[in-house]
Amino acid sequence: MNLKIAVLPGDGIGPEVILQAKKALYAIGEVYNHEFVFEEALMGAVAIDKTGNPLPEQTLNLCLNTDAVLFGAIGDPKYDNNPNAKVRPEQGLLKLRKELGLFANIRPIKPYKALVESSPLKREIIEGADFTIFRELTGGAYFGAKTLNEEGTHASDLCEYSEEEITRIAHLAFKSAQNRRKKLTMVDKANVLETSRLWRKVVQKVGESYPDVALDFLFVDNAAMQIILNPKQFDVILTENLFGDILSDEASVITGSIGLLASASLGEKNALFEPIHGSYPQAKGKNIANPIASILSAAMLLEHFGLFKEANVIYQAVEKAIEFKVVTVDLKPDSKFGTNEVGEFVSNFI
Amino acid sequence: MNLKIAVLPGDGIGPEVILQAKKALYAIGEVYNHEFVFEEALMGAVAIDKTGNPLPEQTLNLCLNTDAVLFGAIGDPKYDNNPNAKVRPEQGLLKLRKELGLFANIRPIKPYKALVESSPLKREIIEGADFTIFRELTGGAYFGAKTLNEEGTHASDLCEYSEEEITRIAHLAFKSAQNRRKKLTMVDKANVLETSRLWRKVVQKVGESYPDVALDFLFVDNAAMQIILNPKQFDVILTENLFGDILSDEASVITGSIGLLASASLGEKNALFEPIHGSYPQAKGKNIANPIASILSAAMLLEHFGLFKEANVIYQAVEKAIEFKVVTVDLKPDSKFGTNEVGEFVSNFI
Ligand SMILES: CC(C)[C@H](C(=O)O)[C@@H](O)C(=O)O
Ligand SMILES: CC(C)[C@H](C(=O)O)[C@@H](O)C(=O)O
Repeated sequence: MNLKIAVLPGDGIGPEVILQAKKALYAIGEVYNHEFVFEEALMGAVAIDKTGNPLPEQTLNLCLNTDAVLFGAIGDPKYDNNPNAKVRPEQGLLKLRKELGLFANIRPIKPYKALVESSPLKREIIEGADFTIFRELTGGAYFGAKTLNEEGTHASDLCEYSEEEITRIAHLAFKSAQNRRKKLTMVDKANVLETSRLWRKVVQKVGESYPDVALDFLFVDNAAMQIILNPKQFDVILTENLFGDILSDEASVITGSIGLLASASLGEKNALFEPIHGSYPQAKGKNIANPIASILSAAMLLEHFGLFKEANVIYQAVEKAIEFKVVTVDLKPDSKFGTNEVGEFVSNFI
Repeated sequence: MNLKIAVLPGDGIGPEVILQAKKALYAIGEVYNHEFVFEEALMGAVAIDKTGNPLPEQTLNLCLNTDAVLFGAIGDPKYDNNPNAKVRPEQGLLKLRKELGLFANIRPIKPYKALVESSPLKREIIEGADFTIFRELTGGAYFGAKTLNEEGTHASDLCEYSEEEITRIAHLAFKSAQNRRKKLTMVDKANVLETSRLWRKVVQKVGESYPDVALDFLFVDNAAMQIILNPKQFDVILTENLFGDILSDEASVITGSIGLLASASLGEKNALFEPIHGSYPQAKGKNIANPIASILSAAMLLEHFGLFKEANVIYQAVEKAIEFKVVTVDLKPDSKFGTNEVGEFVSNFI
């Protein structure tokens, strides 16, 4: 297979971890005879520094005209603590998600056997947990109108959803549940929010076409608790943008490290793959960032194009790395291995 | 001391648990020579059933003219899954919070020694954790304008904040931090939301008056993860309404059961005390609901009026109940004790 892949390393540890993902894909390409052509482009704080724009036209055009996008991480503290910054790195990612129509962000959560002990949760709580979060990615408070009055004393964010936005991701989530344990949990705050009530109504309606999938509802506050109390109860979780952001970071504790979690963002035409972790600026350039999430996002990319065998080889390589404790310090505080060594191990295994 | 206390048992297990809180207060009154006069009123689904209004005028007037409000729980599934319901129980509580001006909801999180094993988290993670969440309670998406178009296909919720709303709770949170370990963590989503950026700016400004308090910032997704990974890092957490709702339910796992957590909601003139758990309708009338959160909310009420010795006796009684395993099934699955027995134990201890 020939694939043209746009690579956006982004900020902080992004470039380091994405390098390891590329190495894994090169190795797969050689062994299985695929041609992956990578083209790099700027996004995020680095793009602001060089062009003034967190998502330069050129980057957007590239992404619109490739088979898939591989993305590293975004964000820089120099913008976070400056409420007056006019442009911010995250705008680049949000605009890219919107322009590519990446409405569904899919985040699988499953602990590795060899890592059960690294979770803050007890073994009996997490062993056997296996669920996927479907997070709506191009709507909600992320994209609604924002206001700040002239005096800078009053601000607002509008959370909006339409039936159509909910319907399309609900179908994906129900289909995924059909291929899994046939349970879908919708997470919302329908006792308070109008948008949540619309979600509930639309998801109930879509659910009628999937009678084999058991549908239940949880308020987001309760869900945040249940994910820790009893993660095994979940199969597919479906939720809106901001709740999905919060719950998936929270759920990362089940696996022992957020450095292990990858995600796929899908639209009608485009697809982007990224770790769920952030740019972790304190670790930048130190060869300590965990590259596994980025490597796994490359595996999700392969799966997306039907290359299941190839994706599996990556999953196996990652499992071996974990089993042999070739992991970064987030997983083993006294580890001698860094970003590079873990990436080497994986690509050599392939 | 003479106190006139409005009692709103509410829905589900509300009436059962509040009965135990009243028993504890009666016992305190007898032993320490205080007169607590209780007056009951309707709120929530029960109020809708009887009057059509989740917060009848009479209830509101009572609450406006008492020293404090003791509240049980609210919510009924018959409204939750009916997106077309015109009135809902929660509106009663939200209106009450607004009318009483209860802008600060204070939720202390601290595990009991004897219960460390009942948490899904490992002992070494939670032992020594001790923090308080300051949740803004009368602003944000809970109270902003809501819309639903005529066709029922498009909905919105507006999240709004003003400098003034942020300033007043920030002062309370900083003052609390001064009396604790002098650390305040502001939780927001300033990389995406305009309201969060306003929060950050205002809290930074208020912080200048509290130079002895170390101020840091966390994005809400990261905070949801950090609360589980390393709860000991927190002292005072300050956040907006919806984030506070989610994070405090989540944080309840540190204590082993949400049935142990009480909260105080404070305004300029009024104060309300309530468990953070919900109405738990499945448990209603079964004598299995944990009354401790409700009993502890009575203790927070006493503290609010400067009755520290009396509050401490309740805290001790609760600790004893837990130590002697006189607890409900949420804490000990094979427990023979119910709501009533736990409440009896506590009031007898006093
Ligand atoms: C960087 C930030 C804008 C982003 C988000 O909130 O969506 C990140 O947290 C994520 O989850 O991908
Ligand atoms: C019942 C509900 C409206 C309420 C809230 O979301 O504030 C509850 O969850 C709470 O935390 O007090």
